[in-house]
Amino acid sequence: MPTTVNAFGAHEAGKPLTAVAVERRDVGPHDVRLDILYCGVCHSDINFAGGAFGPLPVSPLVPGHEIVGRVTETGSGVTRHRVGDLVGIGCMVNSCRACENCKAGQEQYCLKGHTLVFGSPDPAEPGAHTQGGYSEAIVAPEDFVVRVPESLDPAAAAPLLCAGITVYAPLRRFGARPGTRVAVVGLGGLGHLGVKMAKAMGADVTVLSRSGDKREAALALGADHYAVTGDGSAFTELADTFDIILNTVSAPVSLPDHLGMLRLHGTMVNAGVTTEPMPVDVLTLCQNGRSYAGSLFGGIAETQEMLDFAAVHGVGADIELIAARDINTAYERILASDVRYRFVVDGATFADPKA
Amino acid sequence: MPTTVNAFGAHEAGKPLTAVAVERRDVGPHDVRLDILYCGVCHSDINFAGGAFGPLPVSPLVPGHEIVGRVTETGSGVTRHRVGDLVGIGCMVNSCRACENCKAGQEQYCLKGHTLVFGSPDPAEPGAHTQGGYSEAIVAPEDFVVRVPESLDPAAAAPLLCAGITVYAPLRRFGARPGTRVAVVGLGGLGHLGVKMAKAMGADVTVLSRSGDKREAALALGADHYAVTGDGSAFTELADTFDIILNTVSAPVSLPDHLGMLRLHGTMVNAGVTTEPMPVDVLTLCQNGRSYAGSLFGGIAETQEMLDFAAVHGVGADIELIAARDINTAYERILASDVRYRFVVDGATFADPKA
Repeated sequence: MPTTVNAFGAHEAGKPLTAVAVERRDVGPHDVRLDILYCGVCHSDINFAGGAFGPLPVSPLVPGHEIVGRVTETGSGVTRHRVGDLVGIGCMVNSCRACENCKAGQEQYCLKGHTLVFGSPDPAEPGAHTQGGYSEAIVAPEDFVVRVPESLDPAAAAPLLCAGITVYAPLRRFGARPGTRVAVVGLGGLGHLGVKMAKAMGADVTVLSRSGDKREAALALGADHYAVTGDGSAFTELADTFDIILNTVSAPVSLPDHLGMLRLHGTMVNAGVTTEPMPVDVLTLCQNGRSYAGSLFGGIAETQEMLDFAAVHGVGADIELIAARDINTAYERILASDVRYRFVVDGATFADPKA
Repeated sequence: MPTTVNAFGAHEAGKPLTAVAVERRDVGPHDVRLDILYCGVCHSDINFAGGAFGPLPVSPLVPGHEIVGRVTETGSGVTRHRVGDLVGIGCMVNSCRACENCKAGQEQYCLKGHTLVFGSPDPAEPGAHTQGGYSEAIVAPEDFVVRVPESLDPAAAAPLLCAGITVYAPLRRFGARPGTRVAVVGLGGLGHLGVKMAKAMGADVTVLSRSGDKREAALALGADHYAVTGDGSAFTELADTFDIILNTVSAPVSLPDHLGMLRLHGTMVNAGVTTEPMPVDVLTLCQNGRSYAGSLFGGIAETQEMLDFAAVHGVGADIELIAARDINTAYERILASDVRYRFVVDGATFADPKA
């Protein structure tokens, strides 16, 4: 028997989100059900609900993909989680599990296309679409549910499920460690976790920002240095400096300027996606043997590794806890860059969203 | 006492090369002098002599940076080479030796700027410029002279000093080996050595070319597959296929089309340089966690490694041996892509270039 749960969703692209009810399927043999304690609010929720990626695939559409909750029910075949466990769900809840990328533990790059936690056709329930974390409870395959260490603040841990893994994976892949110099471009939801993760990995961290406004905030987060790029002088002063430039900005940046700051065999990696093509200058890329790379959140195993790493190093997001009824205001404030650094919805407020 | 040697050079940018005489400095304590047996003709010789990089830095300018010769004299402090040794000189003859890139053995990325084998101010001879390999003999610091294994055909080895290392270094760096799939874009001087080197490393090699014209030639060089990209269908058929795409084309290509052929964590690397910026599409880069990289020939130690590897695997360039007097015709044929795959000048013909 599917159950109906209270949620917050969009009936139409670009319209305010309202209290809605969605069905959650029965717990199958390899599923777990969890009560949602916290759900982060990510910029891509706004893009999906606002129609930036096309018309809504289902109405209502319930966003939310940074979920922390407690297991309340497990299927007969479940071995990874038990009732009462603190767990998390991020961007995806399924993949083909058979392609070379899935087999490599990089399910986010599933060649058949992964199943997003919301808005995707649900292979577990033909005809239905997945619905996300702005809701009381969710049912998902155990293999796409990760353990959240009890030592983490569960509200501050929620944004780790998307923003956290999105910065952790490329920092790890491109070798952030003691002795490496990492630059973080942009200091929002992704960027502030980029600073914390890179510091926890032992790297020397510089925040690059258009203006001087975020200097104190960046240093308070643990950054070692701060450089203003708005007038262009930093590009010259910091030429040949960084091993990794983690670009978290979802808007075009000047690639030649940024790539020129990479030292020998350094990599600039985009964790934020922009849809506008950017001109890349081959000569700058050839000097120092530089690379420009892209990265899309992370696989399930590395998401687990990231949470365990966050627990060891005490890394969580800096958050502002809100009630479900405040989601629309939060969207406006995110679009105005008025949040330090992530809104997280208190799951208890979905039950009676008018409260 | 400096000596005068016969050479072939340009008095004016873009004008035909003629027989000229240049001075070679005395052999200093750490220099070697060699008689040039063979010198390859590279497209960048044409660019320099043609003024593509600005006015000639010196007149006459003697190009040539794929040099194989025999040592005829060594300085008092020389330890790496002996009279009679078969040796090679490539793109550079000096660097600062003190910056982090030089210390890492990547002198081609010297942060103070390396000394090109021709057309650079020569730190060993204040006021003078280096002059290249289209000449009877050359004097250079022993540290920038490499051993050429006697088992290599010295004429076919000459192009390894630039074209060979330019493809070898990125193939090695990005992990070409048995089990990896390598695509080579373009089948000229660089590309044909890219095929041979990647095959020698054990990779599965595909040549990508605009038309079907080079299919037989590619397979004869050892390529496992050949794909025509002119009509665009190969970009779809070969999506998510390659670990490495070695781009040897010195003209813009469609980055989204090419990057889309990279499989998980694959890298497209430019060994050919184009000065026109190319638009890069971040979404394509983010899928599969792809990278786009640049590479500039190679360091001295890896040039030696490459020559030793070439000797073990019997890799040399396919060449057309010419006399000095044929250099201008060779330039025209290179610009018309009418060479399989490299012209090499017989060093004996510089002595009397009219013969």
